[in-house]
Amino acid sequence: MDGANLPCSCLLLSALPSAQTPQSPLTMTGPLHRGADMSAISPTSIRADFVQTTARLSDEVTQPFSASQKRYVVGSRTDIRVPMREITQSATHTTSGIEENPPVYLYDTSGPYTDPDARIDLLAGLPDLRAAWIDERGDTELLDGPSSGFGRRRQNDPTLASLRFEHIRTPRRAKPGANVTQMHYARKGIITPEMEYVAIRENMRLDELRADPRYEKLLRQHRGESFGASLPHTITAEFVRDEVARGRAIIPANINHPELEPMIIGRNFRVKINTNIGNSAVSSSIVEEVEKMVWSTRWGGDTLMDLSTGSNIHETREWILRNAPVPIGTVPIYQALEKVEGRPEELTWDMFRDTLIEQAEQGVDYFTIHAGVLLRYVPLTAERITGIVSRGGSILAKWCLAHHQENFLYSHFGEICEIMRAYDVSFSLGDGLRPGSIADANDRAQFAELETLGELTKFAWEQDVQVMIEGPGHVPLHMVQQNVAKELKDCYEAPFYTLGPLITDIAPAYDHITSGIGAANIGWYGTAMLCYVTPKEHLGLPNKQDVRDGIVTYKIAAHGADLAKGLPGAQLRDNALSKARFEFRWDDQFNLSLDPERAREFHDQTMPHESHKVAHFCSMCGPHFCSMKITQDVRDYAQAQQLENPEAALEVGMQEKSAEFLSTGAEIYRQV
Amino acid sequence: MDGANLPCSCLLLSALPSAQTPQSPLTMTGPLHRGADMSAISPTSIRADFVQTTARLSDEVTQPFSASQKRYVVGSRTDIRVPMREITQSATHTTSGIEENPPVYLYDTSGPYTDPDARIDLLAGLPDLRAAWIDERGDTELLDGPSSGFGRRRQNDPTLASLRFEHIRTPRRAKPGANVTQMHYARKGIITPEMEYVAIRENMRLDELRADPRYEKLLRQHRGESFGASLPHTITAEFVRDEVARGRAIIPANINHPELEPMIIGRNFRVKINTNIGNSAVSSSIVEEVEKMVWSTRWGGDTLMDLSTGSNIHETREWILRNAPVPIGTVPIYQALEKVEGRPEELTWDMFRDTLIEQAEQGVDYFTIHAGVLLRYVPLTAERITGIVSRGGSILAKWCLAHHQENFLYSHFGEICEIMRAYDVSFSLGDGLRPGSIADANDRAQFAELETLGELTKFAWEQDVQVMIEGPGHVPLHMVQQNVAKELKDCYEAPFYTLGPLITDIAPAYDHITSGIGAANIGWYGTAMLCYVTPKEHLGLPNKQDVRDGIVTYKIAAHGADLAKGLPGAQLRDNALSKARFEFRWDDQFNLSLDPERAREFHDQTMPHESHKVAHFCSMCGPHFCSMKITQDVRDYAQAQQLENPEAALEVGMQEKSAEFLSTGAEIYRQV
Repeated sequence: MDGANLPCSCLLLSALPSAQTPQSPLTMTGPLHRGADMSAISPTSIRADFVQTTARLSDEVTQPFSASQKRYVVGSRTDIRVPMREITQSATHTTSGIEENPPVYLYDTSGPYTDPDARIDLLAGLPDLRAAWIDERGDTELLDGPSSGFGRRRQNDPTLASLRFEHIRTPRRAKPGANVTQMHYARKGIITPEMEYVAIRENMRLDELRADPRYEKLLRQHRGESFGASLPHTITAEFVRDEVARGRAIIPANINHPELEPMIIGRNFRVKINTNIGNSAVSSSIVEEVEKMVWSTRWGGDTLMDLSTGSNIHETREWILRNAPVPIGTVPIYQALEKVEGRPEELTWDMFRDTLIEQAEQGVDYFTIHAGVLLRYVPLTAERITGIVSRGGSILAKWCLAHHQENFLYSHFGEICEIMRAYDVSFSLGDGLRPGSIADANDRAQFAELETLGELTKFAWEQDVQVMIEGPGHVPLHMVQQNVAKELKDCYEAPFYTLGPLITDIAPAYDHITSGIGAANIGWYGTAMLCYVTPKEHLGLPNKQDVRDGIVTYKIAAHGADLAKGLPGAQLRDNALSKARFEFRWDDQFNLSLDPERAREFHDQTMPHESHKVAHFCSMCGPHFCSMKITQDVRDYAQAQQLENPEAALEVGMQEKSAEFLSTGAEIYRQV
Repeated sequence: MDGANLPCSCLLLSALPSAQTPQSPLTMTGPLHRGADMSAISPTSIRADFVQTTARLSDEVTQPFSASQKRYVVGSRTDIRVPMREITQSATHTTSGIEENPPVYLYDTSGPYTDPDARIDLLAGLPDLRAAWIDERGDTELLDGPSSGFGRRRQNDPTLASLRFEHIRTPRRAKPGANVTQMHYARKGIITPEMEYVAIRENMRLDELRADPRYEKLLRQHRGESFGASLPHTITAEFVRDEVARGRAIIPANINHPELEPMIIGRNFRVKINTNIGNSAVSSSIVEEVEKMVWSTRWGGDTLMDLSTGSNIHETREWILRNAPVPIGTVPIYQALEKVEGRPEELTWDMFRDTLIEQAEQGVDYFTIHAGVLLRYVPLTAERITGIVSRGGSILAKWCLAHHQENFLYSHFGEICEIMRAYDVSFSLGDGLRPGSIADANDRAQFAELETLGELTKFAWEQDVQVMIEGPGHVPLHMVQQNVAKELKDCYEAPFYTLGPLITDIAPAYDHITSGIGAANIGWYGTAMLCYVTPKEHLGLPNKQDVRDGIVTYKIAAHGADLAKGLPGAQLRDNALSKARFEFRWDDQFNLSLDPERAREFHDQTMPHESHKVAHFCSMCGPHFCSMKITQDVRDYAQAQQLENPEAALEVGMQEKSAEFLSTGAEIYRQV
């Protein structure tokens, strides 16, 4: 997935430009007495900068959400420790006594950052939790240094010393002839620790909860309509293995990114969301990029793409990877283009190949590769209203036209696969010809490219390389499903990874919403991962608030899709929150929501007093107007009939005198 | 449609509480030297208050949007003048010369407020543009005063003089035995001026544009999938008449609201949106309510419900109606409940009847009537997670339980119809048992009520009374369509009017989005009008910004539905905006967007200079990275082949030498 669609694809690049970060170093004060002397951002101060940022992270984004605790579920071996967020609830006070409300477990993307027991040190990076797993397999070797020419030059350049992450590991690569992809293991019948981890993570303790009577009501769920997905009652490691083996799911997990907490992308699992960050030459420093990455994981970003185009992107990427608990993706053609000073026609295969190796050895987990932008497809875009809007697509279109040759990513695809399998980098086959407007949706250019991506998928799978497929863009609502149906057919059910789609072009400044509508639908139809869009899409650089808005909107879309597909257990959170709402457990309602902080803030604007959060009727309505209380009466009434069947109860009730109800019930609002 | 779902239904009541209105009278200064002496809100100052507010309206919300002008299309008689918003565009500068971009016409809900030639005076109210049409029909008579007891008492109470609108008209009522509904005329084969007005308004000059070659490209449109709707190529007055006669569309237009600009609600027309306002005892003054109403029409609210529950709601309603260019709806049971001091069990038919007449004679265009909450359905809600969440539903459930009698709205439905047809008030048959959580969606209680609404629809139609049907609520994505399908079948295609639905419960503070997703889908499937939801839903009172967010989100949903259904001409705006975007006509892009002001503001945050709005490449990308410029190359290339068929052009191109391209095209970015 490369940058924003229109009018120029780089608008998403810097998620949190310096000027818009609410707490810039210059304004920070705090327990460590961080002062003006540490605030200037320059190469020589990067160490201080990171020390300071680490402290800021603790204040701002590592605080667990209210009533939330980090829990780990241990797998078949003690080093498989799968994090979950546990939200405790208060009890319900009923007339017949206290009803306990059990804790709710949420999928947790935030890594160690929200674990109060973890020591966060951005200078040291995260623990390499997968190192032993990778090592044990015995099919990799440690190199004596980067094997890419560019990587070596950057590593040996003394002027970069002050910018560089201090603990760069020696890169690891498959032994000659070995294939180290999760798909390769899966096809050999091996359940890796990564697969087991993923199974526990997706399953969310559902088996245990099913056995616990406290969850009975909360586990009520509608059946869902899954369009051919085969959502299992319980996700087992074997199911994960099988899905990866078939290519219907991927576990993006480069052997050089041992810090990541494994996750899976496939339509028989929870729908995931991707976020984008990236510096640009002018606006963003390295430490800010790292901070953005942490911010993204806090709100629920499952993966993250680093779309940097500025200088020092090699060093920035190292910092991000060493601190990232989620898979990191890139669009290598962006860096390649930097290396030829922005002239697409000067791109060469050799230089591009070196870029792939450079990034693979740093640990990038998936690469967007626009290998489907074939020369013969380019003129198909000429009559479009918005031509080619993908940055990667444009670059390759220009290269093809300049050379009158086939796209070198296509002609060298076999060699790319060899690199991918030596590090287990997954393909994200790019949709360089995606539509940039409703008018251009589902046209010949778009679908011709998609067919070629299917051909490439088959080729990659022959070498056990993991693949996902990128999708549009701008598509009206009634044409969304065709995208999924065609992708599943032409690309043999490889996971689909879509940007939105936006269902209309007329709402710049609200395109998180126009695209969130398309995203919920396309997720329901079978898209495995949704690439987020922020309110600044098409207009400018998103700030921190925009990133949060974009992520929450996409969490809504992804969860809405999970509910619609009938993912087992998906409705538990809705049920718990609605029950809390119905019972006026305001704090529980906030705690269970996607954005507890904003929910609380909005509530406080109208009802600021703490007593409003425990009132058994809402103070704005008063007791007479309270739907909830009246419904309580309905229940009491139905229960009083001592009959389980409410319709039968009614028949009885009709024969009673209303006087009795009036005498006891005319003022039945009880204050607790 | 009554108030918010949960946790108490009154949360939507005050759209713009005093404390949150950015420009409160207390802080105003301006050309009229409005000072502190005029700022206190009290009965005695209401005149000054309105004078002041009129002046503020001019400053704040009557300013036409940038590049927009009010145009009127005149019908078969000179007093049929249908407003549209015309947006002028700048020209495109191409290498072959200047290409003119034609104006775009938008449906305009803002009434005279955005007409610089109109004199806005809230004290005088809007011109009564329908008065002659109503009078000419000769089937109504002027009363000598309100015929409701409550209405007379309010009118004759000298203590209310200072609160009262100064130019209250004598109410009008059908002559004995006459039926004055638009449906009645339609069924007699009469095309009323209202119907012709609506036809012109829906058609949006499309016939003329089709004949104008400048619109050829902009009129490109996908076919759409309309689920049995019969969208005509051109909307004629006869088509409008026929749809109203069949009951498949309504024109809510009380004979006592001659100020309204007629509009139509039906699934073969543009999808409409409703907004809610309403004061509460504590927070909102009369003048603020009127201001909210104007604010709602500015952003595109097609109708508006006054959900007031506080004191002086009779007087507030008069002020709103006299100044409202859009149909106004109410939930009469709210006011009835006020009259019995909030005790549902004391409600009586006589008092309710008087309330209906009181409001009908003021000019309310549609009433939410919860006549489908039958006694036998009430216990069906007992096992729900969130019981009864509709306020109206709760009130009636309580009444039924208290009296062990059938809902008096049901048992007196025939008498209600008599009132409706005497003033042409449309039914909005309320969904008092709608689900308040995903878990309760599409359950027996909800659908049992819907079936009863169908029975009532048939009954109302026998008396030529217009009807629409209210719908949920909270419904997961895959269960949305069933609501529409069942409504169309059980209610004989009467227009559906739905609240959202919210597709998940877990995002308080973002429920404009969770519901906007459901709204776009349900609109596509056939809902005629969408009731908006603001970000404050479930949490508190929406402020002005929340109202704007809610409306724009619902304009996205409605327009997305129109595109998906293939409403003729709907895509024109998308095409025009995308073309402007592609050609870097930034100002045109902003002007064509749903919220030009915010789009411009977001752009300015990143690229503040005026020169950035005319740049032929985006200054953030620079020339090398600009997708748009590269696409220009593709077009130039395709065109250079002198071949119309791009694939044929490609074949030729493949045989050429790339050297030629490189010599002329390696640096083809032209600055204009």
